[in-house]
Amino acid sequence: MNVKQYLIEKGKLAKSASRKMAIKETHVKNTALKAMAEALMENKNSIISANIKDMENGRQKGLSQYMLDRLLLNEKRIYDMANGLNEVASLRDPVGEVEKMWRTENNLQIGQIRVPLGVIGMIYESRPNVTVDAAALCIKAGNSVILRGGTEAINSNTILVNIIKKAAIENGLPQGCIEFIEFTDRQVVKEMMRLNEYIDVLIPRGGAGLINSVVNNATIPVIKTGVGNCHIYIDESADLKMAEDIVINAKTQRPAVCNAIETILVNKNVAKKFLPQLAEKLIKLGVELRGCSASKNILSNIKLASEEDWATEYLDLILAIKVVESIDGAIEHIYKYGTNHSEAIITNDYKNSQRFLKEIDAAAVYVNASTRFTDGSQFGFGAEIGISTQKLHTRGPMGLKELTTIKNIIYGEGQIRE
Amino acid sequence: MNVKQYLIEKGKLAKSASRKMAIKETHVKNTALKAMAEALMENKNSIISANIKDMENGRQKGLSQYMLDRLLLNEKRIYDMANGLNEVASLRDPVGEVEKMWRTENNLQIGQIRVPLGVIGMIYESRPNVTVDAAALCIKAGNSVILRGGTEAINSNTILVNIIKKAAIENGLPQGCIEFIEFTDRQVVKEMMRLNEYIDVLIPRGGAGLINSVVNNATIPVIKTGVGNCHIYIDESADLKMAEDIVINAKTQRPAVCNAIETILVNKNVAKKFLPQLAEKLIKLGVELRGCSASKNILSNIKLASEEDWATEYLDLILAIKVVESIDGAIEHIYKYGTNHSEAIITNDYKNSQRFLKEIDAAAVYVNASTRFTDGSQFGFGAEIGISTQKLHTRGPMGLKELTTIKNIIYGEGQIRE
Repeated sequence: MNVKQYLIEKGKLAKSASRKMAIKETHVKNTALKAMAEALMENKNSIISANIKDMENGRQKGLSQYMLDRLLLNEKRIYDMANGLNEVASLRDPVGEVEKMWRTENNLQIGQIRVPLGVIGMIYESRPNVTVDAAALCIKAGNSVILRGGTEAINSNTILVNIIKKAAIENGLPQGCIEFIEFTDRQVVKEMMRLNEYIDVLIPRGGAGLINSVVNNATIPVIKTGVGNCHIYIDESADLKMAEDIVINAKTQRPAVCNAIETILVNKNVAKKFLPQLAEKLIKLGVELRGCSASKNILSNIKLASEEDWATEYLDLILAIKVVESIDGAIEHIYKYGTNHSEAIITNDYKNSQRFLKEIDAAAVYVNASTRFTDGSQFGFGAEIGISTQKLHTRGPMGLKELTTIKNIIYGEGQIRE
Repeated sequence: MNVKQYLIEKGKLAKSASRKMAIKETHVKNTALKAMAEALMENKNSIISANIKDMENGRQKGLSQYMLDRLLLNEKRIYDMANGLNEVASLRDPVGEVEKMWRTENNLQIGQIRVPLGVIGMIYESRPNVTVDAAALCIKAGNSVILRGGTEAINSNTILVNIIKKAAIENGLPQGCIEFIEFTDRQVVKEMMRLNEYIDVLIPRGGAGLINSVVNNATIPVIKTGVGNCHIYIDESADLKMAEDIVINAKTQRPAVCNAIETILVNKNVAKKFLPQLAEKLIKLGVELRGCSASKNILSNIKLASEEDWATEYLDLILAIKVVESIDGAIEHIYKYGTNHSEAIITNDYKNSQRFLKEIDAAAVYVNASTRFTDGSQFGFGAEIGISTQKLHTRGPMGLKELTTIKNIIYGEGQIRE
């Protein structure tokens, strides 16, 4: 079968399932999710065996230790996936919520009711747990999902999908609600991005390369996620102890994620006082520092940052430091180099806090808190499918509600337009 | 100057203006809108002169009477545009509204505040009033706008933009808030659709050809608008007088618009009673009828509908008629041929009304009312920039709120992530 035909078959199955999914009762979806969790635990040995193949292939291909760790499934991680399914089952179903209903002058009653997006195409990279997490969230929000995971995880993903799909269908969900693209070559993804007739929305999750490729090639609407060149600006009026704690947290607590920071911007009037002690602590924690010339004057032993440093999402224990004249310099720097993800100011100045909140254009803008909170669970959404850094549809962490759209429903009594 | 460079210059101007627009006070935006309205009235003679050139060129090019009418600007229409500007000034500014704010377990205060989309690219066809309407809505919602209108209206659009832009800038709005693409060749539009660095959202307004071209070529996020193959299903339990009034209204009140109907689906148990009188009235109103074989059995003098008829948005005084077994047949037909715009059921049956509202997947689903109400003004939004028929961002009429997005703002007190 040719690739296009294969994709159309998958698309038809998913589209047809999406009609049934859209009107599925919440309790059926929840029962299926719980059954999927149980099925994962029951089949953990086969999952681990399949994963071992991926791990071996990965080692032979020379994947980094970090990549191998992302690929790994062990008993604990399988338990976490199962647990995640149960948690999604316990979340409130957004479908059918009417957030707004009003009456018009001519007595039409118009409501905006939450309905599923339809068929969601997920394109992601190495971590096999995304297969289960994404399927769970899409299903709970009443969607069908077509999954296309990374080549390295093909054996793990295949078995995971087989297990959860079987459990889902045996427990009342329609055939086609979870489809998986087994082909691993890139041409398939390109074709998938143009299946407008069958896929309503594409969500790419992964590095900048993947996301740019989807944005540039897709004709289906895309929710762009994740790339984060995040900053913290330490204002003159900052509580410097608080600033230090937040910078250390935002850089080192989990450096490889998109809401970790890459650069700090330090007001020139506190740089001398703030930087030496911070630098000492960061260096102890294994962080490499790269500074502008003014910060190098204070911290003589650090590397000089290049223009490229300001634009880089390190995703690693490296921090760039720039001394700025004032909040204006910080705002300009973020405007020039930021990726509209998460930005923070540490300040005790009312005006500056308000200016930062107003003028910074990002999915999440913080006053006196770590950027690491840009996350569906931390926001209280229960779970997330990604973090939108585009402006259409939504911005920031996307939970169940963000996997739905609205439909206008209108109750009339014979009205015609004059 | 080459086209790419020209577009980048426009993009830079608009992007830079969008930062200033985003924090512009409401009263400044309103003053500018009112000044734009006055400037139109003051310059009505020059506008009419420019429009005469377009009308002459149009006649020479052999545009249809209908197209020429869309192109025409006269004193009344200039007054309507000015009036539209004043109405937009009187609408409530959505920017800064916080629809939701909550506290997390660790005491972060998170709010979702409405902010402008940024730079909006409008690509539209012949009607020059779109130039003014779109600019007004984009500006009021705090955006910059780059306008690219139809070739036929180039003289009218150029003068309209010059007038409103001058008035806007003289009244406190930034240079670059309204930019206009003077080049009329198609290559320019294609390049414009890929200016991701400078344009946040594209809104095409026009026929199916234009919209498909934008969907297929754009790398910028698109809000798809408008194509409407809309239906009314007349249920067995319908009040047939109400059904007749609604069908006549939805077909004939303004046939060339997207929310007019193209096909009616009639329950077989009422077809014989309902169709003859309806047909007589519609034919008197100049409507051509094309029916399935069952309806031709009832209305012998009408044309037989082809498969193509079911899929056509006539935008004209033509109506297709199909007799269906039950509500199931109606739902299936709409699923197969509908364009997710506006669909209506005429019924007095509670279960059927609920099924139709639930199972029909469209921007607007009606019980006992004309589909012609799918419109920003009719919905009470004050104005509209188009009707979204896609699922991302919003669905149905788009008013000012739909020209904004959200930003998460987080008030902390030193929180770090554990």
